[in-house]
Amino acid sequence: MRIAIDAMGGDFAPREIVKGAVEAARGLSGIEKLYLVGDEAAVQAELSKYGKKPECIEILHASEVIGMDESPALALRRKKDSSIMQAVNLVKTGEADAIFSAGSTGAAVAASTLRLRTLDVVDRPAIATVLPSLDHPFVLLDAGATTDCTAAMLVEFAAMGDIYAKKILNIQKPTVGLLSIGGEDAKGSKFTKEAFQLLESSPLNFIGNVESHDLFEGKVDVAVCDGFVGNVVLKTSESVSHAMGQWLKEAFSSSLVRKVGAGILKMSGAFSEIKEKVDPEAYGGAPLLGVKGVCIIGHGSSSSYAVYNAIRVAGTAIEQKLNHLIEEEINVIFDGNEQSE
Amino acid sequence: MRIAIDAMGGDFAPREIVKGAVEAARGLSGIEKLYLVGDEAAVQAELSKYGKKPECIEILHASEVIGMDESPALALRRKKDSSIMQAVNLVKTGEADAIFSAGSTGAAVAASTLRLRTLDVVDRPAIATVLPSLDHPFVLLDAGATTDCTAAMLVEFAAMGDIYAKKILNIQKPTVGLLSIGGEDAKGSKFTKEAFQLLESSPLNFIGNVESHDLFEGKVDVAVCDGFVGNVVLKTSESVSHAMGQWLKEAFSSSLVRKVGAGILKMSGAFSEIKEKVDPEAYGGAPLLGVKGVCIIGHGSSSSYAVYNAIRVAGTAIEQKLNHLIEEEINVIFDGNEQSE
Repeated sequence: MRIAIDAMGGDFAPREIVKGAVEAARGLSGIEKLYLVGDEAAVQAELSKYGKKPECIEILHASEVIGMDESPALALRRKKDSSIMQAVNLVKTGEADAIFSAGSTGAAVAASTLRLRTLDVVDRPAIATVLPSLDHPFVLLDAGATTDCTAAMLVEFAAMGDIYAKKILNIQKPTVGLLSIGGEDAKGSKFTKEAFQLLESSPLNFIGNVESHDLFEGKVDVAVCDGFVGNVVLKTSESVSHAMGQWLKEAFSSSLVRKVGAGILKMSGAFSEIKEKVDPEAYGGAPLLGVKGVCIIGHGSSSSYAVYNAIRVAGTAIEQKLNHLIEEEINVIFDGNEQSE
Repeated sequence: MRIAIDAMGGDFAPREIVKGAVEAARGLSGIEKLYLVGDEAAVQAELSKYGKKPECIEILHASEVIGMDESPALALRRKKDSSIMQAVNLVKTGEADAIFSAGSTGAAVAASTLRLRTLDVVDRPAIATVLPSLDHPFVLLDAGATTDCTAAMLVEFAAMGDIYAKKILNIQKPTVGLLSIGGEDAKGSKFTKEAFQLLESSPLNFIGNVESHDLFEGKVDVAVCDGFVGNVVLKTSESVSHAMGQWLKEAFSSSLVRKVGAGILKMSGAFSEIKEKVDPEAYGGAPLLGVKGVCIIGHGSSSSYAVYNAIRVAGTAIEQKLNHLIEEEINVIFDGNEQSE
């Protein structure tokens, strides 16, 4: 497998990106090529920290970077030599099979969608994020690629999430739920009611409406929603767990007695156990499903560990021929039905 | 002030509802009447636990209860003598100034909206929920009353939230943010982009788009969104903090050493300090803003403490003439502009 890495994308780029790539080159099997796309001097400087360069790593110079706060569409037009666009180009020309970027999500989505196009059976792409629940991890999609959705798009998202849960999370017959604001079938917005009907008549293992607490209690394997709502769920869950972490820190250090209690828990590994559970880095980035080629999007704060895991997931997606399976599944679902626009 | 309480609504009704009402009758000043609406025998049995009945408490019999899982509209039509509808009727007839219910939110919203109607200046009502942030509490609305919104409705919600933050949270000049999925003005859905324009041209202290992490970091006093998104934010924040609580419990009790560490923290009051911070009960229920009369909606799991606080908030809303101020503010905002439908 050959993976193009946006070496300049992310809060800790290029340092953590390069480090993660070196670790993947040394620790994962089956890697033919890892392209580090970005400022050659900066990437080389990082790379030189790790001794002999792994043979599969190759630097590809790109003179520009798209910032987190830039308008993706505008930035892609203005910065023709951006690291994300050059990484995507490697997939377009067939030199790479997958892209990874921890930079601007909007830019990664726009570059992949514009340059690679969506699969013929898919109208719009969706970001599939894996989140922890009390019971087992679940896939939430769309987590932010397609903000304004039609109900039919949600069925496509559900099919893509189903395949992802099967092949990446190894769930045999994933349950699919529609994220809504009431367990009952009749509840929700006009949009979710329409999507409910379509999902119910699909061959997917659809269990009906699910609410946020169902997600985090592990009631469902795949939860579908539009990209606006999914992004809100993702960011709310991150913010609340961050805030709770802060409150714990404050409360546990506000007196000597508390410091002693917290010290005992820390020594026993209790905190790292919880951190591991809520740590998104273990899941290795979120794939943008529905584009031709594999595109894995990392969190802005990705560490080398997250980069390593993202490269691993990209490899699995390539090996498992995820896109081929998505095409097959969606063809079955819409077989004989006219696909709505 | 005279408050009609749905004694049968909530997971722990009538026990906790009656207990909270007795505590409010004894602890709060200015209460003329507390109607406990519900099954007379059940309410009387609870009431008799607390010695001499406070004079301001009066039981009003209602033979039916609307369950949490019933379709609100259907249930209201079928159960003519439901406790929530009888409680709303007391406001309609002028016998009470406010309603409190911890029962089905959908039923409380539907009963209040149908029977009391919205204020003349407001198209649709909104539930205003107070949530904690790292810095200070903020108001999120709509938390679930109006699922399908127009952009103009969000301006009304913002105005109502502004008044609420001023009068109930005592914030002099509340900042108002539009909940979206990107800090930049240009980001979001078609719907939020339209709302952005309207909010920007309003006289409110509008600071632009805010994301979930902005909310929980305390960047804004009032966050507006449609009722679908707001309900998702509310429930996601509850679910994530619940899941984190579970993970903490498990991790802190999985060995003797950890139990010792956790025991020290518990004795020092660290856990109750955090619990207080994330405890929605202190804020005393969420008002349904925009209807004629005051309607406070409690969490299904409301304890007597939550009921007490909800009655306190209802009292403040009546005293402060919240509805009158909302009408004034919205008239100013839309002064000279034709209000969109």
